[in-house]
Order: sequence, then structure tokens, then C-alpha cells
Amino acid sequence: MPVLVVGSVGIDDIETPAGARKGLLGGSAVYFSLAASLYTRALLVANVGTDFPAEFRDALATKDIDLSGLAVEDGETFRWSGRYRENMNDRDTLETRLNVFGSFDPILPEAFRSCPYVFLANGVPAVQLRTLAQMRVRPKLVAADTMDLWIRTTASDLAEVISKVNVLTVNDSEARMLSGRRSLPDAAAAILSRGPKVVIVKKGEHGVTAVGRDIGLFSMPAYPTGSVVDPTGAGDSFAGAMMGYLAGTDEVSPDNVRRAIAHGTVAASFTVESFGVERLASISRRDVEERLRELREIVRIPA
Amino acid sequence: MPVLVVGSVGIDDIETPAGARKGLLGGSAVYFSLAASLYTRALLVANVGTDFPAEFRDALATKDIDLSGLAVEDGETFRWSGRYRENMNDRDTLETRLNVFGSFDPILPEAFRSCPYVFLANGVPAVQLRTLAQMRVRPKLVAADTMDLWIRTTASDLAEVISKVNVLTVNDSEARMLSGRRSLPDAAAAILSRGPKVVIVKKGEHGVTAVGRDIGLFSMPAYPTGSVVDPTGAGDSFAGAMMGYLAGTDEVSPDNVRRAIAHGTVAASFTVESFGVERLASISRRDVEERLRELREIVRIPA
Repeated sequence: MPVLVVGSVGIDDIETPAGARKGLLGGSAVYFSLAASLYTRALLVANVGTDFPAEFRDALATKDIDLSGLAVEDGETFRWSGRYRENMNDRDTLETRLNVFGSFDPILPEAFRSCPYVFLANGVPAVQLRTLAQMRVRPKLVAADTMDLWIRTTASDLAEVISKVNVLTVNDSEARMLSGRRSLPDAAAAILSRGPKVVIVKKGEHGVTAVGRDIGLFSMPAYPTGSVVDPTGAGDSFAGAMMGYLAGTDEVSPDNVRRAIAHGTVAASFTVESFGVERLASISRRDVEERLRELREIVRIPA
Repeated sequence: MPVLVVGSVGIDDIETPAGARKGLLGGSAVYFSLAASLYTRALLVANVGTDFPAEFRDALATKDIDLSGLAVEDGETFRWSGRYRENMNDRDTLETRLNVFGSFDPILPEAFRSCPYVFLANGVPAVQLRTLAQMRVRPKLVAADTMDLWIRTTASDLAEVISKVNVLTVNDSEARMLSGRRSLPDAAAAILSRGPKVVIVKKGEHGVTAVGRDIGLFSMPAYPTGSVVDPTGAGDSFAGAMMGYLAGTDEVSPDNVRRAIAHGTVAASFTVESFGVERLASISRRDVEERLRELREIVRIPA
């Protein structure tokens, strides 16, 4: 089955302790689609301006990504510039120019409206809701990402999103903010009570913890890449590989969700090894499988 | 086989977001011995003052702990008081009165000097070295803990300790300080090159990562206790259960080291659930096995 993603496509300027790059292809829907395309066809819905470089479009088109939902609108493409601190976890946004993304109102192509796997990338909750309202068939699995900004400013729309999705991905500080609980197991349990079947808490270099009624508690470390160059897109790559794996296997059993999370962890580890999408766009499914084997050994507790 | 620990026995005043307690039995050798005694006999070497309460001694004596190496010296017992911040990770030391621990010069009872499993708890590296020098037989396994203070002030003695131990336990910031490397895999690799066969990096709520030539890379999350009351002694409980398990099974194979680390993780999860040693001193081996089963399920990646 294919997987649908609605999110951003943008151009990033990024500084990290490893260096600086300007004019990189970025955006949540880009990282997501590239990772998902390792497993299945990704249906991308986003908007860009007339300045969006043809080579960026071509880079996506060579992958298993359907770009018929990529709207080109009058104006300029979303631009973000940020700087990561020494610890590679904290970052400061230097500039955000929303441009056409500021009025993003996704129109799903007819053929996308029955896609059984849907990912609502981080964005205005009302837009996430309008996306869901366009689905003709109730999807098998809807996952959404969000951020602190929406928790603070649009709590009631966000609550509606949370009540309608099967999987919510948040980072650890967002889980705490959303639930008012300090302990992550408590925070996840509180969020679960609002609707989702699974809450996935992303902890950066400390890995990921998933909690759900059916999958129980599942925790895995990050794949220990020795070379973190640019963390941008790690979370969306995680989501892309996870959702791509689920859609590709078309199975949402608790065990398959665990496998999908492991694939997400591995995809994220590749993404952070280069600026932008360079590394992610260069890997094959075989590269993922190899790291997954290593990861299994890393977490192995002998009987 | 028994396990020998040389460290501190003290009296702690502790404040955490969960409350405050005064006059608690504490010290590295106490937490270590209580955890180790779940698996084997612990041989404790430490000193206390004449003020050391009889009920504290009795609490240890009811366990499988040999107190013949607990010297009672003229003066007062080591006292520490600290306050944990809201995140339960950072703590401020409010007061340290070393008292008799300030001149601690361990004399190992004759019967202890051939113990095959030895733990040098955090302390002055020169004292750790004098302890090792008293062993009549080369131990099968020596592990040591250390801290930032010794990395900064007694680097050359510490380097000698590191060159002589099989296992070094450090926390994540100490691993970085000791190696000058930001990435934990890199930091651990740099420390390994100085002598130890295994470096164990303790990451608090984020679990533990072990690296070694034979065991490879092993990473596990912390057991997700919902109730962190007082983190004091978590690291020493971890070391106590780990070393106790290794000594009790008398096997230092790579797979057994992984099992031992899992036992350490579980023991630490009990310790943090009460102030001081209350919870740790109340559990049985069966309690540990039950959490270990849960932990295996938590990290399980289905085939």
C-alpha cells in the first residue's frame, strides 16, 4: 500500500558544529517521503513557490514518490534557517520565512483520498484536520506529528487531532508539556487516554519509547552513529520509514509496529550523518537492513 | 564467589521534588553491598565513626554482607547532604563532611585478599590503587567507578586505575570529560584504548550503554519506573547487582556481562523508588527477575 504525507517542502540554511550549508532541500514531507520510498510509494502533498528549483523536484521524482500533490503557488518557497548548539540537541531558529507555506491549504488529489496510511506532518492542527476531512475512506492508520508551538497556541484544535489519530509522535519535552507529567511513562499514558492507540516519544540521541494499549511499552536506543553532522529531519525520516514499513507490509499488528519503529530508528541514523537529505537519499533498503541487524545485536539481552 | 567492595558508608540528608529526609544510611559501599547481596556474599570494606548507629550496622548484618572490613575509627561518620532539581537528574551538594572518610586508608582483612571479584567504588584514585595492591591473587574481574572531581584533579592516578581495571563505570558527562569526545561511542572507544575491557556509560533515566572488544556495543533503556523518589545510590546499586550477578554465576563471558548489566539496571530501578536504601533493602531476587522479564519485553524487536 502507498503512504500519504501532508507537510512542508522548503529550503534550509543550516549551521551545526560540523559546518554550515545554505539552500538545502528540506521540509518534513521531503524527509518523510525519501525515507518512506525505501518501502513503498509515497504520495506527497505540500506547496512550494515558483522559485522551487527544478533539480530539487527531480531529486524527489527519481524516487518512488508521487509528486502530483505538490502544488506550485505564486510566491516563494518556505525557507528556514537554524543553528544547532554544541550538543547537537538544542537548536535556535535564526529565521523562518513561511512564504507560500503560510497559507498552505492542502488539496488532496482524488487518487490520494483512499490511501490507507496517512501521516500528518507537524503543522497547524486546523490544516491537519482539513486534510483528514478529505479522506473518502477511513484510513487504516493515521499518524500525526506536532510541536510545542501548537500545544501552547491551538490546544483545542490539537486536542481534536489527537482524538482522531492512531499514532502520535512527539519529542520528550512535548510529551511532558502536552500531559503536564514529568515521567515519560506517565506522560505517554495521559496522552493515550485522549485517543491515540500508540504514542511515540522521540528522544534524539537517547532513542525512542513507544507506549500503547496493544504494543505495551517498547523502548529502543538510537543507532549509535559515530558521526552526527546535522540532526535536521531525523524525526520526519523516522516517521517516514516507520509509516513506509507499515504501509509496505500492510500490517498494523503490535509486533509489526515494533518492527516499523526499529526501521524508523535506523533511517533517522542515516539522515543525521550528512547535511540535509544527502545521506538519506543515497541509501538502499539493504543499508537499512544491515544497520537493523546491528541494532538487534546492540539491544540483545541473552537468555 | 563473593564480591569485594571498597567504598564509603555514610549518613545522608536528601531533598528531592518528592520530599526530604535526614539521617539516612547511605554511601557507595552500602548501596553496592545491598544490591550484590541479592546474588552472593558481599565483602564490605569502609570506615565509619564511633557515632555510626547500631541499627544501620544491624540492617546490613541481616543481609549476606560480611562487615569484618568495616572499620570503626575515632571521629564522626561521613555525612553528605544534597538536593535534586526538578528533573531528578541534576543535583546540588549542600554540604559534605568527610570526617573519618577523609583519611580512609582501607586495610583488607586477610580473608578478603583473594576475592576474585572486586569493585572499587568512586573515591580517591590513589586509595583505589592501594586497595588493588593488597590483593594476593590477581582477581578475575576488577571494576571501578570514578567521577569528574578525580578526572580534573588526579588525572595521572586515575589513568593508572583505568589501566588496571577490567570494567570502568562512568556517567555520560564523565565519559565525555575523560575522553574529550562528544559522541558516546567515540568516548567509550577512547577510554577502552587505555586499558579496560568494558566501559559502561550510565545515562540515568536514559539507561546504560556498554562497549567492549568482546561484548561489542550493548545498550539498554532504564526500567521505566513510574515513581522516581530519590536517585541517590542508583549507580552503586547498578554496580552492586551487576558485580553480584557476575560473582554469583562466576562467569565473565560477554553474554554474561550483558545479563549482569540487565540485573544492574533493574536493581537501580528499585533503589530510586524510595529515599535511601529502603526499597532496595526490601526486595528479593524474585522481584528482580520479574522486572527483568518486563525489561526483556520492553526491548524486544520481533523477528
